[in-house]
Amino acid sequence: MEAACPGASAADRERIAAALAAVPEPSFASDASRIPALQKILRKEKLAAFLVPRADEHQGEYLVARAERLRWLTGFTGSAGFVIVLQTEAALFVDGRYTLQAPAETDASVIECRHFKKPPAIEWLAGKVKAGDRVGFDPRITPVKEAERWRDALAKVGAELVGVDRNPVDAIWADQPGDPYSAVVPQPLKYAGEASADKRSRLGRDIAARGAKAAVLNQLDSIAWLLNVRGGDTPATPLVQSFLILADDGHATWYVDQAKFTPALPAHLGNGVTVRPMEAFGDGLTDLAGKPVTIEPETATAWIADRLTAAGATLVHGTDPCVLPKARKNPVELAGTRKAHLRDGAAMARFLHWVDREAPGQGELAVMAKLEEIRGADPLHRGACFTTIAGAGSNGAIVHYRSSPATERAVEKGTFLLVDSGAQYLDGTTDITRTIAVGSVPKRLKEHYTLVLKGHIAVATARFPKGTGGIAIDGFARRALWQAGLDFDHGTGHGVGVYLGVHEGPARISPLSQVPLEPGMILSNEPGFYETGSHGIRLENLVVVTESTMPGFLEFETITFCPFDRRAIVTGLLTAAERDWLDRYHARTWRLLQPRLIGKDLAWLKRMTAPLGK
Amino acid sequence: MEAACPGASAADRERIAAALAAVPEPSFASDASRIPALQKILRKEKLAAFLVPRADEHQGEYLVARAERLRWLTGFTGSAGFVIVLQTEAALFVDGRYTLQAPAETDASVIECRHFKKPPAIEWLAGKVKAGDRVGFDPRITPVKEAERWRDALAKVGAELVGVDRNPVDAIWADQPGDPYSAVVPQPLKYAGEASADKRSRLGRDIAARGAKAAVLNQLDSIAWLLNVRGGDTPATPLVQSFLILADDGHATWYVDQAKFTPALPAHLGNGVTVRPMEAFGDGLTDLAGKPVTIEPETATAWIADRLTAAGATLVHGTDPCVLPKARKNPVELAGTRKAHLRDGAAMARFLHWVDREAPGQGELAVMAKLEEIRGADPLHRGACFTTIAGAGSNGAIVHYRSSPATERAVEKGTFLLVDSGAQYLDGTTDITRTIAVGSVPKRLKEHYTLVLKGHIAVATARFPKGTGGIAIDGFARRALWQAGLDFDHGTGHGVGVYLGVHEGPARISPLSQVPLEPGMILSNEPGFYETGSHGIRLENLVVVTESTMPGFLEFETITFCPFDRRAIVTGLLTAAERDWLDRYHARTWRLLQPRLIGKDLAWLKRMTAPLGK
Repeated sequence: MEAACPGASAADRERIAAALAAVPEPSFASDASRIPALQKILRKEKLAAFLVPRADEHQGEYLVARAERLRWLTGFTGSAGFVIVLQTEAALFVDGRYTLQAPAETDASVIECRHFKKPPAIEWLAGKVKAGDRVGFDPRITPVKEAERWRDALAKVGAELVGVDRNPVDAIWADQPGDPYSAVVPQPLKYAGEASADKRSRLGRDIAARGAKAAVLNQLDSIAWLLNVRGGDTPATPLVQSFLILADDGHATWYVDQAKFTPALPAHLGNGVTVRPMEAFGDGLTDLAGKPVTIEPETATAWIADRLTAAGATLVHGTDPCVLPKARKNPVELAGTRKAHLRDGAAMARFLHWVDREAPGQGELAVMAKLEEIRGADPLHRGACFTTIAGAGSNGAIVHYRSSPATERAVEKGTFLLVDSGAQYLDGTTDITRTIAVGSVPKRLKEHYTLVLKGHIAVATARFPKGTGGIAIDGFARRALWQAGLDFDHGTGHGVGVYLGVHEGPARISPLSQVPLEPGMILSNEPGFYETGSHGIRLENLVVVTESTMPGFLEFETITFCPFDRRAIVTGLLTAAERDWLDRYHARTWRLLQPRLIGKDLAWLKRMTAPLGK
Repeated sequence: MEAACPGASAADRERIAAALAAVPEPSFASDASRIPALQKILRKEKLAAFLVPRADEHQGEYLVARAERLRWLTGFTGSAGFVIVLQTEAALFVDGRYTLQAPAETDASVIECRHFKKPPAIEWLAGKVKAGDRVGFDPRITPVKEAERWRDALAKVGAELVGVDRNPVDAIWADQPGDPYSAVVPQPLKYAGEASADKRSRLGRDIAARGAKAAVLNQLDSIAWLLNVRGGDTPATPLVQSFLILADDGHATWYVDQAKFTPALPAHLGNGVTVRPMEAFGDGLTDLAGKPVTIEPETATAWIADRLTAAGATLVHGTDPCVLPKARKNPVELAGTRKAHLRDGAAMARFLHWVDREAPGQGELAVMAKLEEIRGADPLHRGACFTTIAGAGSNGAIVHYRSSPATERAVEKGTFLLVDSGAQYLDGTTDITRTIAVGSVPKRLKEHYTLVLKGHIAVATARFPKGTGGIAIDGFARRALWQAGLDFDHGTGHGVGVYLGVHEGPARISPLSQVPLEPGMILSNEPGFYETGSHGIRLENLVVVTESTMPGFLEFETITFCPFDRRAIVTGLLTAAERDWLDRYHARTWRLLQPRLIGKDLAWLKRMTAPLGK
């Protein structure tokens, strides 16, 4: 077995694997006494209301367990929501995905579920408070920009936004988890491709060019990328809970719990990184007194900004300096990601062959477990990068579906099974969706599948001038569906990290994103189609933005290799060029995956990657 | 001959035709003494600088002659520019189109030509003035928003923006033209499709819904549309110089020179429109004392806003209430426009046949004159809606090219002739570009032509969900070019009026426009390709946004009928679906135009609209 992580000992590897496995999504039992307990504190503290976002100090997609206050307070398990607790009522604001789930998980006697736009939470609250009222918020978990929006809206009705020193939810949450405690390991140069010292000195120059002396970082994927370290403090992503101040000379001060360090880490960090405890972060901000300091107001918290301002630092608003360099992967990161995708593609092939043979009659949870088992055999595998979406039949039509014993359906012949999954490997992060025709499916479903495939191919083959934003590509994914009067209600693609977050900025392929696509960015290409109550289709590969041979142009290199389901394609709906693309993609998939498969799996791959014919 | 304009007598028709013809683009001789004369006034008035935009009181594309101050002062004839005159220097800011033309037309001893972004004019001026300096501007011709931008930028360096009572250019412009004096005629209901009283009452409800008691209109196409009137006060567009205040009950007060009215006009206007002289407009604004009044800050002038504010009116910022209703054409307007396009298509066919026979060896100006002559035979024709762009060979590559005796090239075999033209008819406005292969052109040029045609067809055949903005369609026009590493540097389409402006908002098909496309909007579909020094291609039809048979979807109906040049097409580059579209388009063109052509023109049309074959 090859070394899983050369920078860590076998014991370290076990520790980090255990740490990743040990951060389950918290399963807090719902309890209707919690909101009244919080309201009692509000009355005591003379707060008309208190804001409970689903957020922690780091504003990432996954929270440290201790910050799952919204979930603990309300019982709501969705990935997006906002709670406002007033002295005698409370409301949970959710988007269209959760309008059924939220009422099912919460207790209507203590909290009302509302659509987040009817009216917006901010307007709803403005209509509830009166002049002189004080509305509490936790500045440690609220971004500068968001606090400004609330402050401005409340000011219009004469109310005041008040930062609390301690979050009142914590006062009533007796068994609140502590800070996560997972091993911190180096991400070796053979995977990271650029030494942290080099990253830090070029970012230091960027900071200086903004007229600042330092940047304050609170986003955990930025810090992990910058220092070439990985941990296990959040679910699905190998992040280390910490803060970082980067000086314009490239020196970093890292506020982190040193007890989590593996032995190799101090040498890996070197002299250019000063390690201090998390508790010292506030003093670190105060030490920036009198200096211009750059923060990103959409993600830096109000607490950070207030502390800097109080110290007499000047705030220079700008983007987190790691975000764009992190998105533009270097050749070593791309090579690692390509390798991870070949191993993941072979695992997916074994899985899809298993689905064909054994899934019919089984439930979605069994399907998910099988996929996890197959992927888990890879020594570089470090768990799923998000909870697998396995939607059988009509469950496939729920875009953000999550299987549970209560909701799961059996895999049945005559319809689709949609499986959207991804994995963390030491050398890369994968994200792939395949939609499988189980048995013989009706022509109409195949037509829908083929329209989605046409959109996928249109994106995969797109060439576009430098400077083009994802918005210009998004329409290519939709055109074939649009011509049939159909569409899908999500973006076409998101950025993907390298053994980091499966969702990362700044670029997207969506009807909104004007951020230019740049060489080295990894994005998903995942058009879909969903018919409520019937079936869902999504076809997802990852692509890398690459230089074109045409001067001034860029194109996409597909790096996911795994067969599309030929049994779901109406060949006559494809153009000659589309058929040609699919045949070449399948031929390449065969060539690349066949050394990794044996026996019946290999024979299955051969069948599934044969040319389509007319 | 059918009646040209039932609402006007034959004499009126002659007057308006003469009026339109009599508003040539002013040809002011350049004179280097003018800027020094203005600078003398600045010193006397203690102004550090004075701003000279290319704009009049109405912020339209075409100015009344009296407002062509920038041109008179500098000699620059371009359609976009901005001048700043300081006491001892002056600068003309132009975009990339005019970086060669501007220095050629202006005198470097008195004015410097600068690119409008290197640095922006506003930054350039901020670097030239000092604290306490006063910078003059003419609030009658400067929009509210623009004045704000200058005021804010100057405030940062301690300088002040000062509105002048009388534009100092007028003080030295001895032979400045007076107000235009052209006949004002009704636009009869058979063309307008909705009575002015009905338009006014529904717009009144919109004004009330904004919480306002009145709207102030200064855009001339809005006023002409609202009152169903047409005039001849600006070049290329049948507009009437005036201002209008629309009350929330639908009553309009129109500030206009009544002496220009044709006899039928007062009855056409009816009791719901009070007519007052232009000079009374200021008092009209003052009469809105204490009321909420809606203006569009991007187009309403600072003078209007200041006058309202001084009177104690409350400003309600919003879009000009006419813009969106005007863009959504009613069935009568669409029917008229379709008819105008059939007559225009027949005229274009006669013209293109003439080009084939007689243009080779002739110059661009002769080509333009021939087209004008052919169109002029139509009794409803009311002149060109912009100066025809006729670019032979390499001149076709200049996107905003304007032929002159000094620049024109002869039509030569072996290359393209690009002709972009449009006409005003009483029943509609046309805009069409055809690129003609003169003799036998090289394969490479034909390939470029075919890629542009593929983009044109991709837009013509697009279907898209309601709510989609032009940005989502724009990529369809470019994809075939992009795949070949090529692109074009302009938007794909602009809105078009009905016997009004050939460029109108709010929607566009461009990489920037998020304004939703709505049923009834008329837009151009004009992808292109330009190779500097060699050739240019643009293929333009107008389309109407229409409801699709697919629920929730919209599509385009092409309303321009005129053959594309089959001799310039590489048939093998078209897909079967594209060939099919072109054959059907040509078959329809034959069917619709053949009743309007005879003899050799008819035979030519037959040849040019035959199916492509393989």
